[in-house]
Amino acid sequence: MSENKVTIADVAREAGVSKGLVSFALNDRPGVSAESRVRILEIAERLGWTPSLRARSLSTRRSFALGLVIARDPEVLGSDPFFPSFIAGVETVLAPQGLALVLSVVPDETTEMRTYRALVSDGRVDGVFLSDLRHNDPRIPLLQELGLPAVTLGRPDTESPFPCISVDDTPGVAETVRYLVSLGHRRIAHVAGSPALLHGSRRRSAFDTALREAGLPAGQSIETDFSVAAGADAARRLLTQDSPPTAIVFANDPMAIAGLGVAHELGLRVPDDVSITGFDDIDFTRYVYPALTTVRTAPSDWGRAAGRTLLDLMEHGTAPDVDLPAGRLVIRGSAGTPVRP
Amino acid sequence: MSENKVTIADVAREAGVSKGLVSFALNDRPGVSAESRVRILEIAERLGWTPSLRARSLSTRRSFALGLVIARDPEVLGSDPFFPSFIAGVETVLAPQGLALVLSVVPDETTEMRTYRALVSDGRVDGVFLSDLRHNDPRIPLLQELGLPAVTLGRPDTESPFPCISVDDTPGVAETVRYLVSLGHRRIAHVAGSPALLHGSRRRSAFDTALREAGLPAGQSIETDFSVAAGADAARRLLTQDSPPTAIVFANDPMAIAGLGVAHELGLRVPDDVSITGFDDIDFTRYVYPALTTVRTAPSDWGRAAGRTLLDLMEHGTAPDVDLPAGRLVIRGSAGTPVRP
Repeated sequence: MSENKVTIADVAREAGVSKGLVSFALNDRPGVSAESRVRILEIAERLGWTPSLRARSLSTRRSFALGLVIARDPEVLGSDPFFPSFIAGVETVLAPQGLALVLSVVPDETTEMRTYRALVSDGRVDGVFLSDLRHNDPRIPLLQELGLPAVTLGRPDTESPFPCISVDDTPGVAETVRYLVSLGHRRIAHVAGSPALLHGSRRRSAFDTALREAGLPAGQSIETDFSVAAGADAARRLLTQDSPPTAIVFANDPMAIAGLGVAHELGLRVPDDVSITGFDDIDFTRYVYPALTTVRTAPSDWGRAAGRTLLDLMEHGTAPDVDLPAGRLVIRGSAGTPVRP
Repeated sequence: MSENKVTIADVAREAGVSKGLVSFALNDRPGVSAESRVRILEIAERLGWTPSLRARSLSTRRSFALGLVIARDPEVLGSDPFFPSFIAGVETVLAPQGLALVLSVVPDETTEMRTYRALVSDGRVDGVFLSDLRHNDPRIPLLQELGLPAVTLGRPDTESPFPCISVDDTPGVAETVRYLVSLGHRRIAHVAGSPALLHGSRRRSAFDTALREAGLPAGQSIETDFSVAAGADAARRLLTQDSPPTAIVFANDPMAIAGLGVAHELGLRVPDDVSITGFDDIDFTRYVYPALTTVRTAPSDWGRAAGRTLLDLMEHGTAPDVDLPAGRLVIRGSAGTPVRP
């Protein structure tokens, strides 16, 4: 292929800079001004430069691919925009380097463990992104045993040799609860994610803590699998009991949107009869009715940070943890003053 | 790895059947009763059988991976559940065979073309899924030139050597329009997808034809990039003009959900002042208010059919086209009789 014949030297000559600078720019390393980087990338693009995988593979025995194994029900995967956005962020880092992403969607944890073993024995990937962390996550010792570099999305609750990219969910949940309390809510319920997942249980304990700090008694909390259907069921249970909550804090936006639907179906006014909040600020939140008050996170920033960190780890054998900024509350119409507090 | 030492012979011995039958069952081929298949898969699972990639690769020089390159804005990708559901369907076929999916998300067509060349020159994949077909799609001759087996999602408008998996969108759009006309609508508008994409332009011409067959004058049609934001803009333009349409047919659900939001924001009642319909029946449609009348399609069925067809093609050098059942209208609350027809 003609593209592969264009070398870094060709790009350097055309740009009138050193090969080292071109290499730095193409590999997105620090030490190159934004202006130079853009110019070098444009020239590389125009000349049709692409990283030559074979040339690199021969000398390094690497596969030049990273892996992401997702153990989720296809249904849940289809309605949660987290993974597509995260993957898009990862790809912005991988693509310029000629790295591929190997994706596996598996139905359960057993298959997931087998998949990691197979990725290693098949030499398919040089590293993996570990998402949906669980308590005492068995994948961490497995990957350590397999010698596969990894980055965890979130901070594990056990010893881990891997760098982690984390976002503290606590401030966002606490801000949501404080806001609801300031509006006059006293009976606030939580529709939580799966307690088996760390981010599910962390959002829940942030909720409990926030209620306590507001001097309120413990609120009702319902566990779900994060799916739209489970969010709808939980909302129905909460809103059809005697003395229902005046506000429900959902652990993700898809469930909160389902909650809005259930409230409408039951003839309740949002936010007069019940306030509803979400988590993540997915695209739809601005357009549902009323628009959803939620906590803004940035899955594609996670993807970018995770991609960079995994590349650093593979190159240098070590990489620092990254703490991304905590999500902030975005106030829209779905939460308000309760008519009957 | 111990898993890889378990052979088909071990599974056959344990199950008390022939190696051939085990191989058929593990490769999901016809000729095995459902009962036997389940039993054999359970035994293989219990013994820890996994396909040995190295053993296969040595004799066949295949990479045992399939590729999917998506050229979409990360934003659009994040709000459209089509791809996650499609990928989940593909994985149900690939995973039992020990095949991996190599995913690339690229920002534009130029990068996409380069990515296909790189996948081939790097020997990364044995075949690819070609989605979002365009007019005179340049990827078809490229893949032919590269000698890369492919399956197209949808029927191309040019000569193609590749099998296609297609769903006729026309009946679903036609049924939607007939339903709106039967409710008394006369001013029906369309918010179309990108005219550069075949499925965008096909849904649009199905809309035009359906209006003509109902004896109505041509309706307004607005082109978009299929994004939630573009759907909202189009709805705002349509609903704020003099003599707005009484019904809007959106080319996908995310845009229709945005349309509901815009209608609410403008103080219009749905469906009294404006009826809104979507396409695909994503999870959220049941929960928005009012619940969305839409056309049900099955992206994970597409994924399964595309996976099977691509494997057949690679194994036999040829595979028949697959026509999946057309989507049917699902009637919910977002379309109704217009108060001022």
